[in-house]
Amino acid sequence: LVSVLSSAIIVYRLPWTWNCSKLLMKFIHAGLNTIAMILAIVSTVAVFEFHNAQNIPNMYSLHSWIGLTAVIFYSLQLFLGFVVFLLPFAPVSLRAALMPIHVYSGLTIFATVIATALMGITEKLIFALQNPAYSTSPPEATFVNCLGLLLVVFGALILWMASRPHWKRPPEENAKVLLPVGDTTEGTEAESTMAGGSNADKSELKISSEAARKQNVKLDEAGQRSTM
Amino acid sequence: LVSVLSSAIIVYRLPWTWNCSKLLMKFIHAGLNTIAMILAIVSTVAVFEFHNAQNIPNMYSLHSWIGLTAVIFYSLQLFLGFVVFLLPFAPVSLRAALMPIHVYSGLTIFATVIATALMGITEKLIFALQNPAYSTSPPEATFVNCLGLLLVVFGALILWMASRPHWKRPPEENAKVLLPVGDTTEGTEAESTMAGGSNADKSELKISSEAARKQNVKLDEAGQRSTM
Repeated sequence: LVSVLSSAIIVYRLPWTWNCSKLLMKFIHAGLNTIAMILAIVSTVAVFEFHNAQNIPNMYSLHSWIGLTAVIFYSLQLFLGFVVFLLPFAPVSLRAALMPIHVYSGLTIFATVIATALMGITEKLIFALQNPAYSTSPPEATFVNCLGLLLVVFGALILWMASRPHWKRPPEENAKVLLPVGDTTEGTEAESTMAGGSNADKSELKISSEAARKQNVKLDEAGQRSTM
Repeated sequence: LVSVLSSAIIVYRLPWTWNCSKLLMKFIHAGLNTIAMILAIVSTVAVFEFHNAQNIPNMYSLHSWIGLTAVIFYSLQLFLGFVVFLLPFAPVSLRAALMPIHVYSGLTIFATVIATALMGITEKLIFALQNPAYSTSPPEATFVNCLGLLLVVFGALILWMASRPHWKRPPEENAKVLLPVGDTTEGTEAESTMAGGSNADKSELKISSEAARKQNVKLDEAGQRSTM
């Protein structure tokens, strides 16, 4: 689940995909998130069935509360993302207004999912390791602790990739050539200030992508400096 | 601890402080983080002493591993922040290069501290509630679960405030007037492109702050659009 979620998050951050059409990348982003959502629902149902079979109460722990909250917000995020960014009806102004919120909620939900996993691991280690107990540090405890630590490192790496401006997909100035429908209205101020014709070929796209990458970094640095 | 950490994070994001000198704000940011560091050390030592007094092994749980990792990274962050951003020796280029890393590590450490607190709460509820057990949802369990959920909401709010460009402290174009030493070298490209004299009075500062705030938002929107 976490790995599918992560792939969905960083799918726009892979430079070798910048030559693919934006619509294709959106489909991949939405598709991976749909797979992650299905996995989340399957595992939530599995937990309830396991609890019922073992006569363990449901939804009593902080892990379950935060986990269910994350699943609910995640389905909202998926639904809103589909309606606003994938269907061709929402105007550019609405997309522009909602994009920072979409990015923020996506990353916050991702961090919450990792925190929920860490709480779940803690619970499982306490309940499952009885003889020898978790507190005596048997090999299983050390091994699973290492996995938990790696999960934190992995989550931190994904957040790093997702927040670096020079790994951001550059603006799509020749959207009209590459995309069939729905996305032709997305010409923006940032794009119109850049050089480049609408009949650019692959190599020109590569050059302007590089320029756009540099512009991303410049914009970010100017922003960063202001609080320095 | 979490509340002091949070205040330290958002101290540049309070518009009513934008008329204060940047050096003063840096001292407040560093001071609050120093207080948080002292609290973290005191509570870590208290845990070890409690464990030793009760004959509970130390450092066996995932909570303790991730918590200690966070404390170590936090002291590194504090030390590097002090040397690079507070002492007047580091050149602007180094500050500019390290600022995005400083911001990223600060926020990642903050999120990790919240995850550690949630794991600690989970452990404590399982160990402390025995009769009635945590799984029977006694009032204490529900109450503490609510506190844990509020902690997540609070953390998410702080991350939202810290990542909004229009809550970013605007560039200090008249740094030479306001700051006594050490910060006069921080004139940057972003600042030099803006109108405003070096003998600006309070009201002029307010106007240019507003312009800078708008510039922050514009820079961010241009960046956001590129992945839309």
